[in-house]
Amino acid sequence: MQDFTALIRAVADFPTPGVMFRDVTPLLADAGAFARCIDALAEPWQGRGVQAVCGIEARGFIFGAALAQKLHAGFVPLRKPGKLPPPVVTVDYQLEYGSDRLQAQAGAIGPGERALLVDDVLATGGTLAAAAALVGKLGAELLGASVVIELPALQGRVRWQGGAPLYSLLRC
Amino acid sequence: MQDFTALIRAVADFPTPGVMFRDVTPLLADAGAFARCIDALAEPWQGRGVQAVCGIEARGFIFGAALAQKLHAGFVPLRKPGKLPPPVVTVDYQLEYGSDRLQAQAGAIGPGERALLVDDVLATGGTLAAAAALVGKLGAELLGASVVIELPALQGRVRWQGGAPLYSLLRC
Repeated sequence: MQDFTALIRAVADFPTPGVMFRDVTPLLADAGAFARCIDALAEPWQGRGVQAVCGIEARGFIFGAALAQKLHAGFVPLRKPGKLPPPVVTVDYQLEYGSDRLQAQAGAIGPGERALLVDDVLATGGTLAAAAALVGKLGAELLGASVVIELPALQGRVRWQGGAPLYSLLRC
Repeated sequence: MQDFTALIRAVADFPTPGVMFRDVTPLLADAGAFARCIDALAEPWQGRGVQAVCGIEARGFIFGAALAQKLHAGFVPLRKPGKLPPPVVTVDYQLEYGSDRLQAQAGAIGPGERALLVDDVLATGGTLAAAAALVGKLGAELLGASVVIELPALQGRVRWQGGAPLYSLLRC
């Protein structure tokens, strides 16, 4: 598999001091690399009957929408609060400092539909775990999750529960 | 061309009183309709040598990323301020009440690269005009723009200048 590391830019102290931000815009801007990235994200899910790809706002929309096309699935945006019109389904979750919430359109995934989560980065894993809970609240069957970048030092995988597979294209 | 109108939900008074919100989540969730929507968005641009599809945050990311894959182009996110790490290129623009700004990663599109703008809705046209100005500031060649929904009553097309084509899949 192609190594996309050279197309991920590490930016120190963004958006806040002490954070090493992973900038995927060079990867997205490279047409061939972006296509190969979507191919690589799709690979473990081919033939698995994915019906809905759930992308986490906002960069998860980019990878998730392209992946939904590739897998001939629908796309479901999982959004920050207040962005989706009612009726919505909500999950609250804890952050290192404070809390946040994630919302989906009620009925966006039918009961028992096979859903896949997508995001750009797996850091502490809080958002991805909340997204999994949201998919469960919608009554869908969670097949698993794929992220482009995993930051193993932040141990996000520890918060991923339930046994569904979690794939990452690169670890840094 | 398929009429997607039945898959666009009109929500009154969202996000603020007096606004009729156009909810595209039913269209996105329908795998077949989403694929046909991307095919229809791509149709006028096939063979035009699009090198970069620029999607406007956040729903423009969804349609734009899928369209970039379809057209074998790169994807460039045009974002709200503070979301992209430095260095960025910025355009300020006027809203009905107040102002806003749109940013792109510096160097995300090379000088003279052929770029296409994508968003979900054309309302008053302020954001799309700002996006066109941003593409110009990056030194790219603006081929035109495609939106899923045009709201003709808001006359957004009047603010679209320069003669490049602006396509919409449906008007409501």
